[in-house]
Amino acid sequence: MPRITIDFSGAYAEQLGVTGLILRELKAVESKAKAAHNRLFERPEMTQDGFFGLPKNGELLNSSVQLARKLKGSYENVVVIGIGGSANGFKAVADALLGSNYNLKANKNRPRYFVLDYLDPSAIRDIFEIAPPNKSVYVAISKSGKTQETAAHLALFSSRLQRELGRQGLRERLVIITELERENPFQRMAEKLELRCLEVPPLVGGRYSVLSPVGIFPLALLGVNVRSLLRGAELFNRRVRTSDPQKNPALHYAMIHYLYYDKGHNITVFFLYDRSLKGLGDWLVQLWAESLGKRFDREGSRVELGLTPVSAVGPRDQHSLLQLLIEGPFDKVITMIWPGSFKPDLKLTVPSWLKKGFGYLSGKSFGQILAAEALGTYEALVKSGKATIKIIPERTDAENIGFLLQFFMCATAYLAELWGINAFDQPGVQLSKDISRRLLGGQ
Amino acid sequence: MPRITIDFSGAYAEQLGVTGLILRELKAVESKAKAAHNRLFERPEMTQDGFFGLPKNGELLNSSVQLARKLKGSYENVVVIGIGGSANGFKAVADALLGSNYNLKANKNRPRYFVLDYLDPSAIRDIFEIAPPNKSVYVAISKSGKTQETAAHLALFSSRLQRELGRQGLRERLVIITELERENPFQRMAEKLELRCLEVPPLVGGRYSVLSPVGIFPLALLGVNVRSLLRGAELFNRRVRTSDPQKNPALHYAMIHYLYYDKGHNITVFFLYDRSLKGLGDWLVQLWAESLGKRFDREGSRVELGLTPVSAVGPRDQHSLLQLLIEGPFDKVITMIWPGSFKPDLKLTVPSWLKKGFGYLSGKSFGQILAAEALGTYEALVKSGKATIKIIPERTDAENIGFLLQFFMCATAYLAELWGINAFDQPGVQLSKDISRRLLGGQ
Repeated sequence: MPRITIDFSGAYAEQLGVTGLILRELKAVESKAKAAHNRLFERPEMTQDGFFGLPKNGELLNSSVQLARKLKGSYENVVVIGIGGSANGFKAVADALLGSNYNLKANKNRPRYFVLDYLDPSAIRDIFEIAPPNKSVYVAISKSGKTQETAAHLALFSSRLQRELGRQGLRERLVIITELERENPFQRMAEKLELRCLEVPPLVGGRYSVLSPVGIFPLALLGVNVRSLLRGAELFNRRVRTSDPQKNPALHYAMIHYLYYDKGHNITVFFLYDRSLKGLGDWLVQLWAESLGKRFDREGSRVELGLTPVSAVGPRDQHSLLQLLIEGPFDKVITMIWPGSFKPDLKLTVPSWLKKGFGYLSGKSFGQILAAEALGTYEALVKSGKATIKIIPERTDAENIGFLLQFFMCATAYLAELWGINAFDQPGVQLSKDISRRLLGGQ
Repeated sequence: MPRITIDFSGAYAEQLGVTGLILRELKAVESKAKAAHNRLFERPEMTQDGFFGLPKNGELLNSSVQLARKLKGSYENVVVIGIGGSANGFKAVADALLGSNYNLKANKNRPRYFVLDYLDPSAIRDIFEIAPPNKSVYVAISKSGKTQETAAHLALFSSRLQRELGRQGLRERLVIITELERENPFQRMAEKLELRCLEVPPLVGGRYSVLSPVGIFPLALLGVNVRSLLRGAELFNRRVRTSDPQKNPALHYAMIHYLYYDKGHNITVFFLYDRSLKGLGDWLVQLWAESLGKRFDREGSRVELGLTPVSAVGPRDQHSLLQLLIEGPFDKVITMIWPGSFKPDLKLTVPSWLKKGFGYLSGKSFGQILAAEALGTYEALVKSGKATIKIIPERTDAENIGFLLQFFMCATAYLAELWGINAFDQPGVQLSKDISRRLLGGQ
């Protein structure tokens, strides 16, 4: 059972003073929230074919796990060729569970992982060198099969694989993950070259796809316990059966942001401890920004709304954003996440030359220092009247991460329903794609 | 001579339509800007002893360069023990100039670099393993010598160095950078153990210290051309001699943000291409947030203002934040930065199996694709009425980076003067430090 504390008290007046919500405000939107809850669960995305059903989709899980098992032992590097929703979820989980210095210590039994989501020529050339064809598995991911960056990388790497290892080698080392759809260029390529191919379910959009093969397959290649990840998500799913915000933390989370947005708070800060949760921050930013930043509501009325997400990493950004969070305008809702414990921890002995000034750190562990700094930051924020929600997973493991992923996906979907917007599309990005394609001579 | 295009036209009505500024608005604050300019140049921070004077402070430069030369050849790893302003500037420059996969390809002649700005016990243990005492130089940086995280790391690593290499080895491999001040614990430690010590000038605060030994010394250890970096900054300094915004881009930049803040735009987005500029984004976030987020103005009136910085990386975040930037509320000013060229670039051949759909990419280089995507994004933002400033360094080299660093430090200082707040203090972070220290049993 995931043991995660989700504490909303730092958003309410009892703790915050006059800048906080009062319970009456929450009550006032309860019927609205109930309606949003009911509408949401009529959406196809919440059925067994949508993101909500992924934790129990054994067939999809097995397709990933079996293919990963087949490839086991044949690679020292996993290269994910994908961008945005095709990569952020994988990276969030891998970083959180494997640690931020993992690649530097990887060895034969612990393959390294890379995400190709950039275009800098020298960095791409580096990957060529670091992850050579005969020691790597490449996973190209794009739901539509139309992503320009991914296509460029795929062109480069598939040509090289074929050149160096022949068609058979290409088949063994390149896996495509895409929607199985006739007009999809990646699917067409996979068919033509008889490549292994895993499916992105039609109803699962990029930023909600981490628990589909998009995230699960490359994670399985790294030996991550994907079953625990899914179990954590499924355990969370049980928490959203009710529209009572006191029992449904995702709905409560959405309602708090809804109420603060009405008071002019247009910024959401995700303040995550420690560096290994940075990837989770990037994933959250995409989920929140793409789902909630919309020009039109579902009825077609112009609304131009959205909460701007800011991802911060503690303790580093105590020395950066915190000054603004404490003293600046009342325009944010802050979510802090820190692990309750680290195993194994690391204890400190303070040498004589630092005793004066820092003697109190003797016998403390780094995990304790982290927790004290996170809690100190939380309390300072609340004392300054800044709305702050705190989330403390007992520790960072696959089950707890799965729980958190599902929590945030559901909370995002709830907030979109409260606003009457579509959490699952992204019509605004087409224009930029069209212009850049035209600049490159495409149609 | 740095060749950098700074283009403000995407913030004005001529390009943007009704959501843009009109020149009359700029004119209306010109006298205010002139006064701010004059006030700023009376501040000690703008003298030869402040951040503004660093590019011409040959003595400080030499102290760093000479010590780096002395240590040359004795290390394969540079470990910076520092956090926030003691590390962000170094990382911004190192990442930008060395590339984001640098550590994975480093070798005897190209030392790796690490920044210890986290508390996760397993990640710290990894550094122990990856950067052992006999192959590493450790640089502990804290202006006040009172930074808790840095002290904890310093306790750990100095004990280990002494244990494994003895006092002499400790002296050879640990360098302290701090303010030379009697009550400073790091300075006291350096004296006691007779460690090498470089100075943080009293008038240079953490987030403005990248061109002091704080940034210059560890960069010199990596072989970065620090003289070019300083030359670029000095070349920028010549651009701020006038208070005419058409000739002084830092002042113009500040005025645009000042005017938009008055219209309710409370968010600043730094959208940087490509991944190697991510560190620059983190540096910008600290500079902007800590300098501009203030509860009181210089007269002591309660103002509670501040612009919240968001750092995004292209093209990745075209698949993340962009939807919100295009369709969401008019609450931001966006700055896009992308390099005009890459040398060497990397050309693409599109294989037969991707011709249909992506044939237009054949013969294009990754640098061209990046530029087209950045420009496409810029144009889409402007077409959507979103205020966007574009900055294009001809390429990413030390001189251009130095120019940009100084540009942003000056622009930040100008905006603070326009608001009448102090850009150089951070009174709001003390409370959180006090609480966490108390939680750990300190006084």
